[in-house]
Amino acid sequence: MQFRERAGTVAGMDAPGYMQQALDAARTAAEYGEVPVGAVVVDASSGHVLAVASNRVEQDRDPTAHAEILAIRAAARDLKTPRLSGCDLYVTLEPCAMCAQAIAFARIRRLVFGAYDPKGGGVEHGARVFSQPTCHHAPDVVGGMEEAACAEILKEFFAGLR
Amino acid sequence: MQFRERAGTVAGMDAPGYMQQALDAARTAAEYGEVPVGAVVVDASSGHVLAVASNRVEQDRDPTAHAEILAIRAAARDLKTPRLSGCDLYVTLEPCAMCAQAIAFARIRRLVFGAYDPKGGGVEHGARVFSQPTCHHAPDVVGGMEEAACAEILKEFFAGLR
Repeated sequence: MQFRERAGTVAGMDAPGYMQQALDAARTAAEYGEVPVGAVVVDASSGHVLAVASNRVEQDRDPTAHAEILAIRAAARDLKTPRLSGCDLYVTLEPCAMCAQAIAFARIRRLVFGAYDPKGGGVEHGARVFSQPTCHHAPDVVGGMEEAACAEILKEFFAGLR
Repeated sequence: MQFRERAGTVAGMDAPGYMQQALDAARTAAEYGEVPVGAVVVDASSGHVLAVASNRVEQDRDPTAHAEILAIRAAARDLKTPRLSGCDLYVTLEPCAMCAQAIAFARIRRLVFGAYDPKGGGVEHGARVFSQPTCHHAPDVVGGMEEAACAEILKEFFAGLR
């Protein structure tokens, strides 16, 4: 069953610090002049981190190289399967429609994101990928974990571009 | 300006045979047990084919390895930029939400697809990615080119699985 809630209601959920690792990956992206977004894929049963990735669109000259896509691809490579059914994904920003559909294809168990993205998000905004009849797997969704910290990194980055 | 029409109204548009190349790539996918979808990226000004790709999700154990994603990544690598503004993409099946958003990020000029996909499409169905306010570039869209041939390959593939 799919559930949605704001992270404030899930006390201590980031105790293992997965969102902190995603935030560190977002900071790495900023250092390379990339839009600062970071993602982590976790094996939900063991708690083991399978992949950490930063947005690398400009460095890799790859329009699909969002942090979520890179983390999913790395975890799938690691597990030798395109289906990550027992895995959770932590990401600092609400995924776009591309990443949301990739999360659905990968059968991610739970998506936890930080900042909401009214301008480009595809989960709670715009395409609302998981709510479409064309979406055949929807993860549990938790939005707003470490929201202020995740949003601040993006705000600083875009202020610096001006 | 975005326009949408069925390919039947664009006489001779596939004169260079781009969709035929995409169909060949779809047949290659089927030979490897993959859902048979193929894609081609073309430099619109020169007519040069920059990339041809088949769906490789199972072979690559990569849930993002749809034909469109692989063709876009290959063309971006070739042109050394994540932005393929002067390029057109031909694909045998209506893109899903993941691929549609990737097409938007890549700033593809025109998308030409074959079969419509009411169950999984993200252009004319479901997420309708290009129609969302969160989508900041929409290509021209032509649907239904070589529709019967593109659909037949998929139909044969799924019949063979039963």
